[in-house]
Amino acid sequence: MRQMPLNITLRNEASFDSFVAEAESLAMVLYQLQMAIIRQQGGAWYFYGPEGAGKTHLLQAACRFAQQWERRCVYLDLEDEEVRNFPDLLKGLEEMEVLCLDAVDAVLSESSWQDRLGQVLLQAQTLGHMVLLSGQQPMGDWPLQSEVLADALATVVPVSVMPLLERESIMLAVQRHGQVRGLQLPKSVISYLIRVFSEDLEAVLLALQRIEQVSLIEKRRITLPFVKRVLSHQEPVV
Amino acid sequence: MRQMPLNITLRNEASFDSFVAEAESLAMVLYQLQMAIIRQQGGAWYFYGPEGAGKTHLLQAACRFAQQWERRCVYLDLEDEEVRNFPDLLKGLEEMEVLCLDAVDAVLSESSWQDRLGQVLLQAQTLGHMVLLSGQQPMGDWPLQSEVLADALATVVPVSVMPLLERESIMLAVQRHGQVRGLQLPKSVISYLIRVFSEDLEAVLLALQRIEQVSLIEKRRITLPFVKRVLSHQEPVV
Repeated sequence: MRQMPLNITLRNEASFDSFVAEAESLAMVLYQLQMAIIRQQGGAWYFYGPEGAGKTHLLQAACRFAQQWERRCVYLDLEDEEVRNFPDLLKGLEEMEVLCLDAVDAVLSESSWQDRLGQVLLQAQTLGHMVLLSGQQPMGDWPLQSEVLADALATVVPVSVMPLLERESIMLAVQRHGQVRGLQLPKSVISYLIRVFSEDLEAVLLALQRIEQVSLIEKRRITLPFVKRVLSHQEPVV
Repeated sequence: MRQMPLNITLRNEASFDSFVAEAESLAMVLYQLQMAIIRQQGGAWYFYGPEGAGKTHLLQAACRFAQQWERRCVYLDLEDEEVRNFPDLLKGLEEMEVLCLDAVDAVLSESSWQDRLGQVLLQAQTLGHMVLLSGQQPMGDWPLQSEVLADALATVVPVSVMPLLERESIMLAVQRHGQVRGLQLPKSVISYLIRVFSEDLEAVLLALQRIEQVSLIEKRRITLPFVKRVLSHQEPVV
């Protein structure tokens, strides 16, 4: 058996600085979250929304932020098979000052997981620690079987996260992601990427990763002609 | 006569990433501002508040952001004598897609300046350009003599900016400033700086500048003992 993936590397660009919140309410929650980490206030939040809304980014950003403030922190992806098969993994994790559990949907059908989740939430609350959960379903739609979990959920604040809708928000998000990686992306490149990938932020960021790699290997600046060449190699024009 | 200071260097750390908005309303205005720059929407805003609230930071952040989006942009400090004595300097500046005029209080007592301000605002509006003003007095308290300016002000959105009140917001701001400069500041250093300088953000950032310089010269990491030594040299213990 491989070592438990407790020390998953956080994505480089997963920071609050590169996250764009279109909704005012979400922007405020993120500010409060950072304050709560600095203040060591504790609390529990559930970020829910469709794929591509940025939930993983948020949880990893919180984890990175917590690390910067020297808080004990763990990020776990419950979709990961090595995690999913071991509900006992959660045992003791309430000791973490910030505990981030991504993709809870993956385990909600199992009552052993539900109990564990409920326990860790209640224990974290007692210790004044913070738990961040994410998933696609609203809490009201969870297949609740565990009474412990049902009790624990009373203290969890649900926060809806939606994919960016406005083209300009997506442009801003791409720019911020570039910035966090130390890339200065010309406006023309950002526009081009968004046009090519039909405003799908995840696809754009993936393309950006490829572009960055090639630019590092070839030691080239990221210009529009460069980007067009890189992308046409990856996706040949038919 | 020296060259006109039209190309004032923007402060390195003056970016939206290092600005902390405690007030929800301000956070939203800043988001809208960035969207407006990306969209080339135009509009006029007046940021007002006491010294140390971060008005210069905001205007410079907007200018930097506009540059990143390849917009024509100028930042002018109207308190600067070489600017203050030449209202004609504003002539033609409506051509800038983003025009940032800091510390308007310094020139409001002169009717020639009031006329020029009014003209540039109206012209920028016609061209769909953006003007950002800052000052200490609410617009209602301006000694309005110029009818042009009075007319132009109707389209200017006033935005109140206050110094950070909460200790944690100040800590966050110091951390962000460090981050933008590429410094990883230990929590202990941030706490210490804020304690020593009585939570005065400007004083803290000034101290941070000195600390950064010494750390660069001496090639030392920024630790708490290092910071204590640097500061005690600057301000000897009596």
